[in-house]
Amino acid sequence: MRMPTIKARDVKRFLIGERFPTSRELHERLDTVRGLAVFASDTISSNAYATEAIMSVLILLGSAALRFTLPLALAVASLILMVVYSYIQTIYHYPSGGGAYMVAKDNLGRYPSLVAGAALLIDYVMTVAVSTSAGVRAVTSAFPETSDYRVLIALTAITLISWVNLRGVRESGTIFAVPTYAFFTGTLVVIAIGLVRHLGLFGAAPLPVSAVVVPPQRDATGLALIWLLLRAFSGGCTALTGIEAISNGVQAFKPPEARHATTTMVLMAVIAVVLFLGISFLATTMHLAPVELGESILSQLTRNVVGSGFLYYWVQVFTALILFLAANTGFQDFPRLSFFMAREGFMPRWMQNRGDRLVYSSGIIVLALISATLVIVFRADEIAMLPLYALGVMLSFCLSQAGMSQLMARVGKLSPGETLNTGVTTVHYEPNWHWKRALNIVGSITTGAVFIVLVATKFAEGAWMVVLALPLFVYGFERIHRHYERVAKALSVERFDERQLKVIANVAIVPIGDIHRGTLLALQYARRIASDVRAVSIATSPEARARVEQRWHRFPSVTAGLSLVVLDYEYRDLLEPLVNYVTRLNTVEFPDRLVTVVIPEFLPSNRLARLLHNRTASFLRRALREHPDIIIIDVPIHVEDRD
Amino acid sequence: MRMPTIKARDVKRFLIGERFPTSRELHERLDTVRGLAVFASDTISSNAYATEAIMSVLILLGSAALRFTLPLALAVASLILMVVYSYIQTIYHYPSGGGAYMVAKDNLGRYPSLVAGAALLIDYVMTVAVSTSAGVRAVTSAFPETSDYRVLIALTAITLISWVNLRGVRESGTIFAVPTYAFFTGTLVVIAIGLVRHLGLFGAAPLPVSAVVVPPQRDATGLALIWLLLRAFSGGCTALTGIEAISNGVQAFKPPEARHATTTMVLMAVIAVVLFLGISFLATTMHLAPVELGESILSQLTRNVVGSGFLYYWVQVFTALILFLAANTGFQDFPRLSFFMAREGFMPRWMQNRGDRLVYSSGIIVLALISATLVIVFRADEIAMLPLYALGVMLSFCLSQAGMSQLMARVGKLSPGETLNTGVTTVHYEPNWHWKRALNIVGSITTGAVFIVLVATKFAEGAWMVVLALPLFVYGFERIHRHYERVAKALSVERFDERQLKVIANVAIVPIGDIHRGTLLALQYARRIASDVRAVSIATSPEARARVEQRWHRFPSVTAGLSLVVLDYEYRDLLEPLVNYVTRLNTVEFPDRLVTVVIPEFLPSNRLARLLHNRTASFLRRALREHPDIIIIDVPIHVEDRD
Repeated sequence: MRMPTIKARDVKRFLIGERFPTSRELHERLDTVRGLAVFASDTISSNAYATEAIMSVLILLGSAALRFTLPLALAVASLILMVVYSYIQTIYHYPSGGGAYMVAKDNLGRYPSLVAGAALLIDYVMTVAVSTSAGVRAVTSAFPETSDYRVLIALTAITLISWVNLRGVRESGTIFAVPTYAFFTGTLVVIAIGLVRHLGLFGAAPLPVSAVVVPPQRDATGLALIWLLLRAFSGGCTALTGIEAISNGVQAFKPPEARHATTTMVLMAVIAVVLFLGISFLATTMHLAPVELGESILSQLTRNVVGSGFLYYWVQVFTALILFLAANTGFQDFPRLSFFMAREGFMPRWMQNRGDRLVYSSGIIVLALISATLVIVFRADEIAMLPLYALGVMLSFCLSQAGMSQLMARVGKLSPGETLNTGVTTVHYEPNWHWKRALNIVGSITTGAVFIVLVATKFAEGAWMVVLALPLFVYGFERIHRHYERVAKALSVERFDERQLKVIANVAIVPIGDIHRGTLLALQYARRIASDVRAVSIATSPEARARVEQRWHRFPSVTAGLSLVVLDYEYRDLLEPLVNYVTRLNTVEFPDRLVTVVIPEFLPSNRLARLLHNRTASFLRRALREHPDIIIIDVPIHVEDRD
Repeated sequence: MRMPTIKARDVKRFLIGERFPTSRELHERLDTVRGLAVFASDTISSNAYATEAIMSVLILLGSAALRFTLPLALAVASLILMVVYSYIQTIYHYPSGGGAYMVAKDNLGRYPSLVAGAALLIDYVMTVAVSTSAGVRAVTSAFPETSDYRVLIALTAITLISWVNLRGVRESGTIFAVPTYAFFTGTLVVIAIGLVRHLGLFGAAPLPVSAVVVPPQRDATGLALIWLLLRAFSGGCTALTGIEAISNGVQAFKPPEARHATTTMVLMAVIAVVLFLGISFLATTMHLAPVELGESILSQLTRNVVGSGFLYYWVQVFTALILFLAANTGFQDFPRLSFFMAREGFMPRWMQNRGDRLVYSSGIIVLALISATLVIVFRADEIAMLPLYALGVMLSFCLSQAGMSQLMARVGKLSPGETLNTGVTTVHYEPNWHWKRALNIVGSITTGAVFIVLVATKFAEGAWMVVLALPLFVYGFERIHRHYERVAKALSVERFDERQLKVIANVAIVPIGDIHRGTLLALQYARRIASDVRAVSIATSPEARARVEQRWHRFPSVTAGLSLVVLDYEYRDLLEPLVNYVTRLNTVEFPDRLVTVVIPEFLPSNRLARLLHNRTASFLRRALREHPDIIIIDVPIHVEDRD
């Protein structure tokens, strides 16, 4: 009975498509249209809930306090523009990408850069976990009977997004473009209709105004009021998440990379600010009030502006889809940031490897696994995860802008025409450096303050985990780095002299169970490489000893001149005496020399049949590998095992 | 940060105890007291339900039909004695053990022996699954709040029994003696008191007689009545399960093995028959009637005879315990039977290995895993599993006695004083051979008939699975056997001539990524064993090629005289071009010769740190191993990686 064999490679080809040659890298890069779909989904999707995040804090003071929404939204929008401006500067100065991590490394030093890296990596994981869970909530709200399968749906979403990402950047850009563009055009149309009705243009019916009055839950004055406004502002700052994404991945764009990246960045900023301010304006105009765990502000707004028709469902469906897709920003940037950190030895080296479709496959898979774990642990409940989210990105904004202000200070010290190589990039004198620097300082302080407010307000609910994880991550990066340094030193060929290489002892040990064609071949091989060949056999009984000795002498053409060592052994685990013999030989007879062990290994062609054998050879090899100064020679004996 | 390392070996020592030298084997053998505890639990425990199995069929004809119970019980008891007698003959003729499998092999041929082996192995798995589940039912009946944890309790019981068995036969005999002896002494006392009361000895109060009258559910006459009586008889035959156990494991007893085994067998038979007839007699005397899913006959009987006092609870508690322990018979015989079948190449060879405590650990673990799977699949519901149980053992009785009758025929052909070596054992002329033969024939036909009745009545409820599994098992045994034969042929040294051994080509290939101390050592080693050494490096870009070529020339003391082959490659998976290069070399340049590949492998002492490396060496080794005619040399480069 023979099954048709399906090779792992065929499955892989089927799932992720033909592999790309390295030279195709440029072709796989993104244009602005796909770049916006790939990188901007997180930021754009934030507008689905950023206004609500402000309002849900203000409502604690009663519906009257909602009048602060628009001023706060304007403040957040200015911050968005400030941060975007700063990142555009970053893209131009660091066109090879790496974002906050690179800027911090180049201007603030190692530890700030590692903190920025850790903050961003944590946040990308949270982005995936939170946004898929939020997407699931949208699905389960629409179809309550699916709510038992929350975790399953979220894991399916993560798997799908990973899969599309593994198929290549360009392909994921193409696939993800539809929901991204559909979401923001739909929402823009709603806002436009809302404004038309508000202004009474074209004889449109005026907007309905809600008469709902929510009584204040508490009373705040003085400092308490300021604190509440700060919290509302910080809530609104979720609109900023994802802004940094493009700066990490400049090299994902077609050349000229910096220009394409900047255009995409500007487009993203415009869309985000328009959506955010539009929603905030209309929501306050119509006196909408947030309802905890109830209908979202965006849904209320759409319904009130355009009714429950086609456009309403369009916005609802694509809101759910873009929430899932916000996860894609994590899938773009986690692998890229890992690549940068791995290149410098702070993350496993293999995170640099590109897969068959030229994406950083290892990073994609690692991210999928970690975020899936989070989803399982938190049972896909994004409300429980929110306190851990958006902290990291704020910290990275703060560090990135601090780094840029430092760079501007260095630029300012140059005379016109002079250039400076910082180690990572080359800068010239810039006339407006002090304005840019001032903007960066304001941005850094503001985002830093938001970070502190977020940590302070959400500490007990979960932010402590992030605060705890940050130093642990930095410690981990440091340990990894130290490991690679040690390895580099051990393998270093500086001042190399071949006399430093270990001497190879003229000995070969051949562990044998029985004497058969396989062991004879191993002995034959051992003869060739050493003149002192010792076959070692473990005898668990006097009969076993007699048998092996008798058989040994049957093949003088092979065994003549070689020695047979039979070791009596009282137990059944044969590895131990063999390993002991070899290591003793190494330490006593041939100290500081390389000792060779020739292991005959029997390999049936039928893999299932391998389960029928003891696999002593394989275990022996594994045990001997752990001891230094032992060279292991595998002599595989293939046995064709088919009917 | 260094953790104190707990070695796997220490954990093993702690769990299963110090390992025993092989010479201790005799000391670990069983005396009669322990032998009874280890082997008889299944048979003795059957008495907890065998009478009930008869009555629950008869009751279909109404309580009047229960008068058939005692005659049927007597028939079953005679069958027990007949089978026991046959197995005592088996023990004397086959003192090396192996039971039905050996007898069938020696007298009926290969296929009947494989069928007997398969039937017994299936039945041992069922014994474990059914009896632990029955034990769980006893527990959950007493404590209904535990019924949600049925599967968990059953799995825990399987784990505990496996664990005790892994600690050694002698030790398990000691541990399991208490509940076995406590159960049957308790039950014997109840029966004795019952008889005393029945006979009115010592002025004891007469036994109560139940006035419950169960109307007949159906009416049966003629053939239908005979069929029903046959079914009742077959139900009572569950009392026979486990009788064969001792004949499989004769070698588990202290010398003289056959005598110890026979004594244990006789003791077991006496206890079983006394309990079975005693219970059957009292149950009919008191007009007890079985209640489906209600109080068991044994419980009703005990309560009526001795009241609900201490003795009642004693019998109940130890009934539950011995139900769990019946599983132990499976744990004794499954590994032993596997040993016999593995020795002859019908099961994986490693099932012959004895563990640290001289038991067949692999068999114990395999049985635990399979029966645990069954328990999970059947949700520990023994009622659902019963149709699959006791079939196998009946088939093995039938085959074993057929085999013994064949042996007696051969014995009869001898003249007094003559001996015959059957291949497995040596027999002499025996005066009473035709009587023995007649008994065996009657036993074989009766148990064969019971097998057919069991299959026929339970086919749809699950017996079909056993009927289906039997040929599949036999097919599997055959496949395994064919594999071992093929291997033996391939390794055979008959008509061996060392010129048949493959010629070793004078070439060594060294795959290298970079040139460092490790690769230089590998090159140094390769120089020693071949004069044609080729370092092969895969260049994924022109820069990579230039770099490796430039570095190669920096170390003339090692690289002089060796060739460097740089292969340009358009993809990132480096294994493929390396494997292709080696196999092409093997087929084109050195056809039919052994080609050597020297793989430098980098091994940090810290195992966790290995995750930081690409492990290309390890994957390459794995890929090359699958190709014939390639010798692989591992040159491990150990890097001390501690603070």
